[in-house]
Amino acid sequence: MSTVAHFIRNPFVLDPQLASDSHPIAEWELSSLRLMDDSNYPWLILVPRVADARELIDLDAAQQTILLGEINRASRALKRVFRPHKLNIAALGNLVPQLHVHLIARYTDDPAWPAPVWGRRHARPYEPEALVERVQQIRAALDA
Amino acid sequence: MSTVAHFIRNPFVLDPQLASDSHPIAEWELSSLRLMDDSNYPWLILVPRVADARELIDLDAAQQTILLGEINRASRALKRVFRPHKLNIAALGNLVPQLHVHLIARYTDDPAWPAPVWGRRHARPYEPEALVERVQQIRAALDA
Repeated sequence: MSTVAHFIRNPFVLDPQLASDSHPIAEWELSSLRLMDDSNYPWLILVPRVADARELIDLDAAQQTILLGEINRASRALKRVFRPHKLNIAALGNLVPQLHVHLIARYTDDPAWPAPVWGRRHARPYEPEALVERVQQIRAALDA
Repeated sequence: MSTVAHFIRNPFVLDPQLASDSHPIAEWELSSLRLMDDSNYPWLILVPRVADARELIDLDAAQQTILLGEINRASRALKRVFRPHKLNIAALGNLVPQLHVHLIARYTDDPAWPAPVWGRRHARPYEPEALVERVQQIRAALDA
């Protein structure tokens, strides 16, 4: 153990729980955009690739501004594709402390409405073909 | 009914449900900062005074930037006063569609941990003296 190690920044590594709960959609300037593997809801997460960030206020001003733009871009794509009744946006992190922002397209007849989606239902993983279709659908909306 | 009425912007009015569930702390540049009347958690909301705003993307870029600064300011005050294990930040709006951002100081031994706070417990309203103390405590932290 060298004291020098204390001064070396940890590299960013995607939290293993987030990695196993979601599928990659795009790598943006600050964040990885991923689809949560729960077909109950159109549900994205943005994970800023900033080592050790847990809270929004752990990002510096420039990073926050980029993240805000990425939230807008993902929100607009969700609205365009899914025409939800409401968007839910949240940074919670009680279970997975690595900073990640949820963006969820909600409908008044979805399985959890009007409650938040977390911890209400068991996730319903996508079938492989449905997953491919959904990822393509979102990528197309992001490019539009 | 005159067609002219369609071109008159609605003035901002705080949603009556938000008004009755929370107490005023401060009027900031864009948002009203309020304390949720639930002593289970240190729980603030920011309500941008923008008529008809429901989603974050209903705000223009300048308004979003101000809101981000207000979220940072409120987050830092919560961290300073309450030293929580985690902050939860969320814009949901499933029950009250008027745009409002929740900022909640969470502890690993609070009544809902690790679940989100919404809909888990009946709110435990502040006793009058506790309310005065809490509002003063937060105002002092905001001025610090």
